[in-house]
Amino acid sequence: MSASRKIAFIGLGIMGSPMAANLVRAGHTVTGYNLTQDAIDKLVADGGLAAGSIAEAVADAEVVITMVPADPQVEQAILGEGGVLESAKPGTLVIDMSSITPQTSIKVAAAAQEKGIRTLDAPVSGGEAGAIEAVLSIMVGGGAEDFAEAKPLFDALGTTVIHVGPAGAGQTVKAANQLIVAVNIQVVAEAVVFLENAGVDLPAALDVLAGGLAGSTVLNRKKANMVDRQFAPGFRIDLHHKDMGIVTAAARAVEAPLPVGSLVAQLVASARANGDGSLDHSALLRGVERLAGRKVN
Amino acid sequence: MSASRKIAFIGLGIMGSPMAANLVRAGHTVTGYNLTQDAIDKLVADGGLAAGSIAEAVADAEVVITMVPADPQVEQAILGEGGVLESAKPGTLVIDMSSITPQTSIKVAAAAQEKGIRTLDAPVSGGEAGAIEAVLSIMVGGGAEDFAEAKPLFDALGTTVIHVGPAGAGQTVKAANQLIVAVNIQVVAEAVVFLENAGVDLPAALDVLAGGLAGSTVLNRKKANMVDRQFAPGFRIDLHHKDMGIVTAAARAVEAPLPVGSLVAQLVASARANGDGSLDHSALLRGVERLAGRKVN
Amino acid sequence: MSASRKIAFIGLGIMGSPMAANLVRAGHTVTGYNLTQDAIDKLVADGGLAAGSIAEAVADAEVVITMVPADPQVEQAILGEGGVLESAKPGTLVIDMSSITPQTSIKVAAAAQEKGIRTLDAPVSGGEAGAIEAVLSIMVGGGAEDFAEAKPLFDALGTTVIHVGPAGAGQTVKAANQLIVAVNIQVVAEAVVFLENAGVDLPAALDVLAGGLAGSTVLNRKKANMVDRQFAPGFRIDLHHKDMGIVTAAARAVEAPLPVGSLVAQLVASARANGDGSLDHSALLRGVERLAGRKVN
Amino acid sequence: MSASRKIAFIGLGIMGSPMAANLVRAGHTVTGYNLTQDAIDKLVADGGLAAGSIAEAVADAEVVITMVPADPQVEQAILGEGGVLESAKPGTLVIDMSSITPQTSIKVAAAAQEKGIRTLDAPVSGGEAGAIEAVLSIMVGGGAEDFAEAKPLFDALGTTVIHVGPAGAGQTVKAANQLIVAVNIQVVAEAVVFLENAGVDLPAALDVLAGGLAGSTVLNRKKANMVDRQFAPGFRIDLHHKDMGIVTAAARAVEAPLPVGSLVAQLVASARANGDGSLDHSALLRGVERLAGRKVN
Repeated sequence: MSASRKIAFIGLGIMGSPMAANLVRAGHTVTGYNLTQDAIDKLVADGGLAAGSIAEAVADAEVVITMVPADPQVEQAILGEGGVLESAKPGTLVIDMSSITPQTSIKVAAAAQEKGIRTLDAPVSGGEAGAIEAVLSIMVGGGAEDFAEAKPLFDALGTTVIHVGPAGAGQTVKAANQLIVAVNIQVVAEAVVFLENAGVDLPAALDVLAGGLAGSTVLNRKKANMVDRQFAPGFRIDLHHKDMGIVTAAARAVEAPLPVGSLVAQLVASARANGDGSLDHSALLRGVERLAGRKVN
Repeated sequence: MSASRKIAFIGLGIMGSPMAANLVRAGHTVTGYNLTQDAIDKLVADGGLAAGSIAEAVADAEVVITMVPADPQVEQAILGEGGVLESAKPGTLVIDMSSITPQTSIKVAAAAQEKGIRTLDAPVSGGEAGAIEAVLSIMVGGGAEDFAEAKPLFDALGTTVIHVGPAGAGQTVKAANQLIVAVNIQVVAEAVVFLENAGVDLPAALDVLAGGLAGSTVLNRKKANMVDRQFAPGFRIDLHHKDMGIVTAAARAVEAPLPVGSLVAQLVASARANGDGSLDHSALLRGVERLAGRKVN
Repeated sequence: MSASRKIAFIGLGIMGSPMAANLVRAGHTVTGYNLTQDAIDKLVADGGLAAGSIAEAVADAEVVITMVPADPQVEQAILGEGGVLESAKPGTLVIDMSSITPQTSIKVAAAAQEKGIRTLDAPVSGGEAGAIEAVLSIMVGGGAEDFAEAKPLFDALGTTVIHVGPAGAGQTVKAANQLIVAVNIQVVAEAVVFLENAGVDLPAALDVLAGGLAGSTVLNRKKANMVDRQFAPGFRIDLHHKDMGIVTAAARAVEAPLPVGSLVAQLVASARANGDGSLDHSALLRGVERLAGRKVN
Repeated sequence: MSASRKIAFIGLGIMGSPMAANLVRAGHTVTGYNLTQDAIDKLVADGGLAAGSIAEAVADAEVVITMVPADPQVEQAILGEGGVLESAKPGTLVIDMSSITPQTSIKVAAAAQEKGIRTLDAPVSGGEAGAIEAVLSIMVGGGAEDFAEAKPLFDALGTTVIHVGPAGAGQTVKAANQLIVAVNIQVVAEAVVFLENAGVDLPAALDVLAGGLAGSTVLNRKKANMVDRQFAPGFRIDLHHKDMGIVTAAARAVEAPLPVGSLVAQLVASARANGDGSLDHSALLRGVERLAGRKVN
């Protein structure tokens, strides 16, 4: 449907690799770069091209997409020595799809603008499965025209693609998403221990709760995990811990109070400190159980 | 469908009045008692019978339903002088549909059992509209056989009717419901202020959030209230404040920790102290705005 | 010093027993009653008189002192069948020195007033040692003249004796005391784990902290417990848990927000649920350690 | 007493200016640099020497002291272009007395060590008055020998001077200090509103509380502020907000949970968002009053 674009894709990890492949599949010319060669080889096997450096990947690109772990990697890959802004031509559209603090996105946008380079921040939710199946939700911050130009690319990657405001807004919405998810999990966990301690039939109770005003996607998707104490991820507590760091920092920067959010951030950190970092975030239940004096191992 | 039963209905308020009428409509003989006469007159107009006292209402009843404001009224109406247990025949089934602490329900059940009277605790959610339209959710605690016997009556009042455990279990689930709802509202409120302070397009953002793992019935039903700052109830903060008192007391009684729930209970109390008690509970947003230094009046 | 009074002393437990003995020592005629006979025998050995019932103890008394565990026992001993108000003569001064909710003290005062009986609420702090050595702090609510009349008795029991307001005010101040103590302990515990995790020399650090604006009686008295992990009571977590129940209920009753206090109440409850109830309240440190992923036993 | 040293002093603000003057007074040769000339002129008037740049100040120094507002200024002044590490000779002792995150102090120490330069982190408490009167508390992290060498200089600045551990430890203890102070203030504020709402005689109550286990330096020094609602600083909420950012970040870095500390950090931020940033930190009381529905302006 969309015209074929020349895309540089920086960061071919668990998320980036299938996303790049989906862009190839949609008819685009995708040149990939990653710190490890095997990920680049996989992209080539999927029909993409290999680059030996960010500079090489970016040299000829109309659009640059970055998908890296956290703020320092984004700063390094875009603003750093040998980074995107050194090599990209004026007019290039740089789309950072990493999940980072809005403040870093705003800083990247300002640095890019000085060089005539356009940016969007476009973090995603939906996880590895969503990346593979191209059903991600994509929250986009930046200029409306730039969003319109990038829309066909986003449509190759996800099903919910929404422009939510200026530079940083995509990250802000992603951060808000993680805030709500963590708190919704925590309160369900508190409810579960309360119901169990009171001798209630837990599966029956969670079914009623899911059907009323207490219902939520968290409750629908995670209640079986909680009933069965099966915490294979899913979305790991380690990652949610990173995200709670983002949202508390971002909220502080804009003077938004998070009395409940900040407490839950501490409980997520506690889960990690208790060795639950590689479990699904629904394992916040284990933290409530520990507070209740139960042995969880 | 169900055999006609002789029912005494104690407490014909905003909820009790339409519930009693629905039982009349389902073919039952309903004798009502209320502290004010007009409510009794309304039941008679709806096809019910009038009683001048609890004793009179209960004398000939197979089933007694109580629907009163809070723990003291339940204790008074069932355990007190002139209350249900004084007049009800052994074998009567007493169904308390008030929302109270599980511990009081357990106490009522024990007192009734000594007199050979059976009890169910069966609090509801769904509000006045749900009561009128007979689409309440009903969470029932007590014996399985007693539940089975009462099921046809509940079906005349609601659409989701679930037996969740022994005496008190219905109240526990109702309390858990109110816990989750309050916390889900609070975190959406924190997210809203965060999004606004960051300059995000709020309606667009809430739409994305509602579509992902952050989605919830609260978000779906209350996001327009929050965007428009329209807080006509709905469910009043005053009532949610009462319910947070129930859930914190009930959780304490069974040694279940509510770190987040207890903090939100304080924020609900604060909303009330700030004069928002008669607003919809989505007005917890106003509390977050106050913390953020906004003028909300 | 003071004129000898006829005192009935109800409740000769760990606190009441040495207090009654101190009143004997000060020259008063003290008639004691307790649920167990050995405590009465001990009072007789200390120079007091024995009563076989509250009625008998109270019959001839000018002043009645009650010192019992909690709200239900106060209600029973003063308001209940066979209780103080049934037997006390009009004009008697009833001093409840138990630690209970201010609301119950107010209820007791109102019930007494109807019978022409005067009341003071006069909870203490200082523990068993303070009771034995007559160095308690006594916080007194009630009428100024009644306080003046009771002052010589209080002076036989403690060293800090202050009239803080009308009926219930003594309990309110006691509750505030327990609130501040629990929170001060909790934050020192958070600081200790933070300092240790950061590799700081803990005893040196606590010494600096104690000397500055962070200094507190809690820090002075409890830092050795925390450094050495020696949690022999002192004041048991079980009792502080009871007191946190009082202060959260009392604050709710007067619409005072306790965002931090209510969270700490949950952490105290969690300590108890984890089996630390019989340890000194400085063992709140163990809860912070558990949150930090440390094995504490 | 101590041998005269050649000291470069970078940062002659409200704190740095009197501290530099005290070092002059103690017989040291102090060469000062500041971003504004008037502060340098003042040092010269006090007997010091002027430098036109950090490089010039540092060139000949045996000891370099930095006293600047926050992490970025420390990084700039020590690690940045034209900063201390560029000009200082190997063997120089660099003492950073700013209040910053321990992690930045550790980073500075590591960078310095690569150049053979020694460092101490030595934040202070005691405020402007303490700086002028040379009665600061100084918490020092770094090597024991370096501490011993610097001890005479610290003794010219303060009265409590303690070595608390390796690089960063001084900052950690300062952060813990601010954590405890903020929480101790907050809980006193919660107690004040509770006592007032309950009709208690506040000054009398605070006197009793100060005399028992609830006593603290905060209560002693701030109770009059609270009773009189006089919030002239003292220590400004803006600065405490900065410090709560330090302690929450530092605790996160070492995986120490701050459930209560993080909540209080939000309440400090809220005070600032409500326009109370330039008031004394005891004005946290105003935040509790707002939560209680009182008008505070």
